[in-house]
Amino acid sequence: MYRTHNCGELRLTNVGEHVTISGWVQIAREFGSLTFVDVRDRYGITQLVFDRSQDADLCDLADTLGREFVIQASGTVRERSNKNPNRATGDIEIDAKTLTILNKSKVPPFTIEEETDGGDDLRMKYRYLDLRRPAVQRNIILRHEVAAETRKYLSEQGFLEIETPFLIKSTPEGARDFVVPSRMNEGQFYALPQSPQTFKQLLMVSGYDKYFQIVRCFRDEDLRADRQPEFTQIDCEMSFVTREDVLQTFEALLRHIMKTVKNIDLGEVERMAYDDAIRFYGIDKPDTRFEMKITELNELTQNKGFVVFDNAELVAGLCVEGAANYTRKQLDELTNWVKRPQIGAKGLVWVKCNADGSFNSSVKKFFTEEQSAEWAAKMGAKEGDLLLVISGEKDKTRKQLGQLRLELGNRLGLRKADEFKALWVLDFPLLEWDEELEHYHACHHPFTRPKDGYESIENIAEIKAEAYDLCLNGNEIAGGSIRIHERDLQEKMFELLGVGKEEAEEKFGFLMRAFEYGAPPHGGIAFGFDRLCALLGGQESIRDFIAFPKNNSGRDVMLNAPSPIDDLQYKELHIASAVEE
Amino acid sequence: MYRTHNCGELRLTNVGEHVTISGWVQIAREFGSLTFVDVRDRYGITQLVFDRSQDADLCDLADTLGREFVIQASGTVRERSNKNPNRATGDIEIDAKTLTILNKSKVPPFTIEEETDGGDDLRMKYRYLDLRRPAVQRNIILRHEVAAETRKYLSEQGFLEIETPFLIKSTPEGARDFVVPSRMNEGQFYALPQSPQTFKQLLMVSGYDKYFQIVRCFRDEDLRADRQPEFTQIDCEMSFVTREDVLQTFEALLRHIMKTVKNIDLGEVERMAYDDAIRFYGIDKPDTRFEMKITELNELTQNKGFVVFDNAELVAGLCVEGAANYTRKQLDELTNWVKRPQIGAKGLVWVKCNADGSFNSSVKKFFTEEQSAEWAAKMGAKEGDLLLVISGEKDKTRKQLGQLRLELGNRLGLRKADEFKALWVLDFPLLEWDEELEHYHACHHPFTRPKDGYESIENIAEIKAEAYDLCLNGNEIAGGSIRIHERDLQEKMFELLGVGKEEAEEKFGFLMRAFEYGAPPHGGIAFGFDRLCALLGGQESIRDFIAFPKNNSGRDVMLNAPSPIDDLQYKELHIASAVEE
Repeated sequence: MYRTHNCGELRLTNVGEHVTISGWVQIAREFGSLTFVDVRDRYGITQLVFDRSQDADLCDLADTLGREFVIQASGTVRERSNKNPNRATGDIEIDAKTLTILNKSKVPPFTIEEETDGGDDLRMKYRYLDLRRPAVQRNIILRHEVAAETRKYLSEQGFLEIETPFLIKSTPEGARDFVVPSRMNEGQFYALPQSPQTFKQLLMVSGYDKYFQIVRCFRDEDLRADRQPEFTQIDCEMSFVTREDVLQTFEALLRHIMKTVKNIDLGEVERMAYDDAIRFYGIDKPDTRFEMKITELNELTQNKGFVVFDNAELVAGLCVEGAANYTRKQLDELTNWVKRPQIGAKGLVWVKCNADGSFNSSVKKFFTEEQSAEWAAKMGAKEGDLLLVISGEKDKTRKQLGQLRLELGNRLGLRKADEFKALWVLDFPLLEWDEELEHYHACHHPFTRPKDGYESIENIAEIKAEAYDLCLNGNEIAGGSIRIHERDLQEKMFELLGVGKEEAEEKFGFLMRAFEYGAPPHGGIAFGFDRLCALLGGQESIRDFIAFPKNNSGRDVMLNAPSPIDDLQYKELHIASAVEE
Repeated sequence: MYRTHNCGELRLTNVGEHVTISGWVQIAREFGSLTFVDVRDRYGITQLVFDRSQDADLCDLADTLGREFVIQASGTVRERSNKNPNRATGDIEIDAKTLTILNKSKVPPFTIEEETDGGDDLRMKYRYLDLRRPAVQRNIILRHEVAAETRKYLSEQGFLEIETPFLIKSTPEGARDFVVPSRMNEGQFYALPQSPQTFKQLLMVSGYDKYFQIVRCFRDEDLRADRQPEFTQIDCEMSFVTREDVLQTFEALLRHIMKTVKNIDLGEVERMAYDDAIRFYGIDKPDTRFEMKITELNELTQNKGFVVFDNAELVAGLCVEGAANYTRKQLDELTNWVKRPQIGAKGLVWVKCNADGSFNSSVKKFFTEEQSAEWAAKMGAKEGDLLLVISGEKDKTRKQLGQLRLELGNRLGLRKADEFKALWVLDFPLLEWDEELEHYHACHHPFTRPKDGYESIENIAEIKAEAYDLCLNGNEIAGGSIRIHERDLQEKMFELLGVGKEEAEEKFGFLMRAFEYGAPPHGGIAFGFDRLCALLGGQESIRDFIAFPKNNSGRDVMLNAPSPIDDLQYKELHIASAVEE
């Protein structure tokens, strides 16, 4: 037996016990005739003491220990004279009687500490050492807990976890498929699933009325920061449900996770129509931890002689509470911030609602104090607040104000990492016109059900979808919809999306055929599991919540993957290299 | 709301309640002025009654219902006059007041019943209909339960479920890798994991001392019956453990699964050395639900003038209890059975231990009754038993007797589907000589630790491994080993296996480097999850325990996958077709 206890569990109640522990040397230091060794494992750190006056040979051995050596030691637990209140085991130490070096270690390329001196590349190359750091271990353990509580909750609600295949057929959900050449089927390829969408719908047809799966998905996209070619979803589907049933079920899931994993009461989840989200927050995933809504000002600002506003499709602004004291320098800096190419605003108009009731403004040549007061009233501003106004094309202006709002939220400390606010965004548009390809594409995906009444609406662009997103702190953590379950409607949808009859049959014939044999009404949702874990861990980046992530080129730098294959493999797979010299 | 109750839950206690149910029409039949409709979902079947004398229009609508139509109906629960004791809801029926057809159905290509008239190919093409059959639904639900209980148990034992990547580097574990061309890394490929072996070892190096994962694995092998290109493992690894720790932990897991899912007390799991398994059962995964061990008879049978035995390396036999009354025809048939090419024995010698104490034998020309009595004594036979003896080359003879033993077990009803007997097989050989490639290969895998004392053993072929298999009813359900955790020993192992220094570095450099930074002693196991579920479901074939399996050519006949990709995909992936015209 390698250990009687782990390195995190010994307490004063264990004093006098003979124990054995195993773990990694965090630090070893001589102090007169004593050698202190901190031994670490994932449960904590325990201090060993070697006493030269009792056993010089043992002490000599202890003095050879280097950082990250793996050791086993036994001895008697005793109370420490010099207690460490920052450590759970800080009241005790082990008076060591034996020591075995189980494995040596080279000096690691960076320190295995809460904060490390290793850069990103080095950490990824030696990910197995990075994963030893308590900061990363907490993330990995959190992920385990979120998965465990998700499974527990859904199982208790009667959901079945059903595994769907990974070697499937190409499914066009917007992104490119990763494909796998088949050795046994010459010239043919499997695709890795972008999601189990069609399978979970087939399971509904099969009568498994509550399905879930925590499952890996794959998208061969050009990687943006914080996006991985393989990622994990909590994938769910239900039959005989309305939108309301789905919303209730999955906000209860989120509440359960928040309560059990973080001990946070999430409360009721607010709901907002997509159109309102865009109008008031300039984004389809509003961060509702703070208010600061967008106010439209066209009526008060146009045709007053300021040509910039007069020519704008939309004039709208934000009221920044208590920011009337911003200096000219701060306002210039904000103006430059919105004019950056990433934001793209032409300028920023400001109005200070001074503490004395007066107004000061960057457009006082065009607008009187009375007019400023009208703006302030419309925006619900009070003395001491700052109004920031942007104008231009409607969609762009909303987006710019949405970005400015988030930036101000950050600067003003309104986006607290330990505060959690969830929001359902509902009634998304069904279709988006693709200027380039000259046909519609599905906002959610082609299996999404139009809202009732779609048959009579002449302007197809106005049709809303039975689609919903769940947002947490301004991040989309889940998205889903009620699906189409009738073959004729599904065919009509493919037609609208510019998918020809033949192509639809080739790609989705199996699903449409299934719809002919008694498909029940159904709908579902998928959570981005990596993102959910990162948010619960109080971080925005998913990378450190994945044990072995890939870099922005899709490479695993530790494995050095991907890598070339040999000629025999090419031959067996019926493919040839087409790499240009 | 689509339903107040599912189709399996209404009882006499619900009589008088107004309820709504949704589901599939199992059968609809007219009976005078009444129409009876059985509605099915995964929870059960409930009977609706439509009464023409009360509502003729509604009855007309009910009379249009066909098999597998999806309907919603509401009405009042009432006691049935003609109860059905074979159905949980058989005491009640619903006096239907409303009926909505949610979706129609074509006539399904086979019956959706416990036993179906659909052949294998048809069932697989319409798998979504096949999955509606209660027999298949029980399997899928059982699978969910086994996974849920596995996760529950291991989590309670402090194991963390940690996800490992799917897009990795080629790992040579005996089988071919499926590979995935990388669009972003020209001329390079990912491989899909044959198992997370190296990752779980890295996690041990990282200090996650108890890891598990229920995870998909991939092997591009020529498919034998009941083998799938993608399959699921319960993958586990532990640090600071001896073999004993691993055996205790995972037989407790199996006990937990058996108890919670099947309500069966498995009891202690017996242990057997690999050498004994081969000697006494002719196989490395003995079915210990019945005894019938192989007895070696060389001493009693050789140099007695029977040249067949004299020339044999091994003469050995089985004692078949109570089979002395086998007819000449039965014995000839058994003889032909062992002479089939799949078994390959040259012949079968039999001795009947008659009820009157006399002996009868197929070799009485060469052996006296006294000699037969000696054989019987050695084999522990009693009056009424039958001795079956095979001779030849040692390994082959053992294997043939092992196969004969299982066949006799089947014929005699000794292999009961509802009886479960687990067995640890220990002390496997470390290496096997590959005649063709002229080097050793690893019996388990190259990361398996040799048993202590390996340094001093001159004959390398004699070295045993710290490897173990868990068998259930003659099937290997799990296999694992204590691993090598030192770089030098791992290098030596690769050398023995004919893996050159460069190749070892190229393929496993990351793992060997990891071993230099404080790798703890560790070991693990992996359960074949599909097989485990099939056995618990009382079946030998895994196919119906996988929602969407592939056929023996690795095809999904429902999806028609794999399938060709288009020219743009070839181009983007930097590959060309090499299909011969």
